[in-house]
Amino acid sequence: MASASDDPTAGPTDAEAACFEAGIKFGTLYHQFAGTPVSPESAGSLAAAIEESIENQPHCRDVTVDVLTDELEAELAESAADYTELTGRFLEVEIVVDYEGCEVVTRMDMQDGYPLMRVESVRGRAQQE
Amino acid sequence: MASASDDPTAGPTDAEAACFEAGIKFGTLYHQFAGTPVSPESAGSLAAAIEESIENQPHCRDVTVDVLTDELEAELAESAADYTELTGRFLEVEIVVDYEGCEVVTRMDMQDGYPLMRVESVRGRAQQE
Amino acid sequence: MASASDDPTAGPTDAEAACFEAGIKFGTLYHQFAGTPVSPESAGSLAAAIEESIENQPHCRDVTVDVLTDELEAELAESAADYTELTGRFLEVEIVVDYEGCEVVTRMDMQDGYPLMRVESVRGRAQQE
Amino acid sequence: MASASDDPTAGPTDAEAACFEAGIKFGTLYHQFAGTPVSPESAGSLAAAIEESIENQPHCRDVTVDVLTDELEAELAESAADYTELTGRFLEVEIVVDYEGCEVVTRMDMQDGYPLMRVESVRGRAQQE
Repeated sequence: MASASDDPTAGPTDAEAACFEAGIKFGTLYHQFAGTPVSPESAGSLAAAIEESIENQPHCRDVTVDVLTDELEAELAESAADYTELTGRFLEVEIVVDYEGCEVVTRMDMQDGYPLMRVESVRGRAQQE
Repeated sequence: MASASDDPTAGPTDAEAACFEAGIKFGTLYHQFAGTPVSPESAGSLAAAIEESIENQPHCRDVTVDVLTDELEAELAESAADYTELTGRFLEVEIVVDYEGCEVVTRMDMQDGYPLMRVESVRGRAQQE
Repeated sequence: MASASDDPTAGPTDAEAACFEAGIKFGTLYHQFAGTPVSPESAGSLAAAIEESIENQPHCRDVTVDVLTDELEAELAESAADYTELTGRFLEVEIVVDYEGCEVVTRMDMQDGYPLMRVESVRGRAQQE
Repeated sequence: MASASDDPTAGPTDAEAACFEAGIKFGTLYHQFAGTPVSPESAGSLAAAIEESIENQPHCRDVTVDVLTDELEAELAESAADYTELTGRFLEVEIVVDYEGCEVVTRMDMQDGYPLMRVESVRGRAQQE
C-alpha cells in the first residue's frame, strides 16, 4: 500500500508549511476571541491582548489587529445595549508568518458581507519549488 | 398543572439573581479566555483585556484578574516551549456584581488542585428575604 | 477592619450558591460554544454535545439545548453561505441545578432582540433563609 | 513603492492556499473546543459535534476526531473529579482539505509532549508550480 511517506513529493514545501502556520494563527485568533464582550471603550485593550497572545505562537512574526470602533458605535447606536460580542465585521487583521525564511503575509477583512481570510503574498520560496 | 408562575415564592430574590449574574460572569470569563496562548510577557495585556471585557456585562461593577506569572515561569522552565495555554492554575479572579442594590463578591483561585469559583459575600439582602 | 468572615450573614445561602452555580453553567455554555460553525444539518450533533458537556459540571442535573434550525434556515436563505456561527438567536436553553437540595431552573431565550438568561424558579430554600 | 500586487509571483499557489485553508480549520477546531468540559461518557458526542461543525467550513472535505478516552480515564483516575477540560493531549485529529483540485492531508497528535499540527501530504499541485 502506498502512503505519503513513499512519495518524496507529497510532503509540504516550506512555503506550503508557512501558509499552514498562518492559517492556524487565523483560526486561533478568530475562534479564541469571537464572542468576547466588547465596547468602544474596551476595544483597545482587547486588540492589544489579541496581538500579543497570537504573537506567542511559533513562526509568528507580527500580528496587527484593528477593532473597528466606528462599526461598534454604529451597531450600538441602533441598540439598547452598550456592548456587543466580538465578531468578524468588527475586525481587520494582518498576520505575518516567517517559516524557514519564507515570509507569508495574510489578512482578514469583510468582503461581500463575510470576514474573508486570505494569503496576500508568499516570499522567499526556495528555487526548486 | 402547577407551574412556577403559580407560586409567588418560586421566583428568585434579588440576592439570588445577583448570584446568578455573578456566576454568568465567571463562566464567561473562564470559557472565553481559557486556551489563549500566554507567556509571562503577554500576561499583562491579557489580564487587562479580560477585566475590561467582562466589566461590559450587565450589573458587573468590578473585575480583577491576576495572571500568575510565577506559575507561568515555573511551567515554562520545565518545558521546551516559551508560551502555554491559559488555564485555571494561572488565574486568580475577583468579580463584584451589584444587582438592585445587592452586592455579591465572588472569587476564583486554586483549591486542592482545582480552580474553585465561589461566592464570598452577599450584602444588601432585602429584609423580607 | 471588618471582613466577610466577621459577619456570619455575609456568606451565601444554599439557594444563592445554587443560583451562582447555574450562572456558571450558562456563561460556560454560551462562551464555550458561541462562534461554532453550524448548519441545519450539524445542529443536532452540536446540541447533543453541548448538553452532555455541560452536564459534566458539578451540581448540574439537566441541560436541554434547542438549536433553532428554522432560524438558521431563515438566515442562510438570505445569504451566499451554507453555514453560520452559533450565537444567541439560534439557541434556547434550559439548565436545572441541584445544590444541597435546592433546585434552580434557569433559561435562556431571545427577549427584545437579546439572548436573556434568567432564573425561573428556586425551590427547596431552607426555612431559615 | 513595490507591493505584492506589483509582483505576479507573490500570490499563493493553489497548494499554498489549500494549506492555509487547512491551517484555519485546525486553529478553529482547537480554539473553539479546547476547554470544553469532557468525560469518557461525553467524549463521543463531543467528537461527533467537532467533526460536523468543522466540516461546514469551506473546502473542508473530511474531519476525523478521536477523543482519547484512555487518556481521559488515566487522568481522572488520579483525580477527585469525574470530568476535565478538553485539551491537546486528549485529541487526535485528521483534516482533509480540497482546494481547486489540490488535496491536503493534515494531522494533529502529541509529539514530545505537545500537540503538533502538521501537513502530511499535498497532492494535485499544478505543473507550473
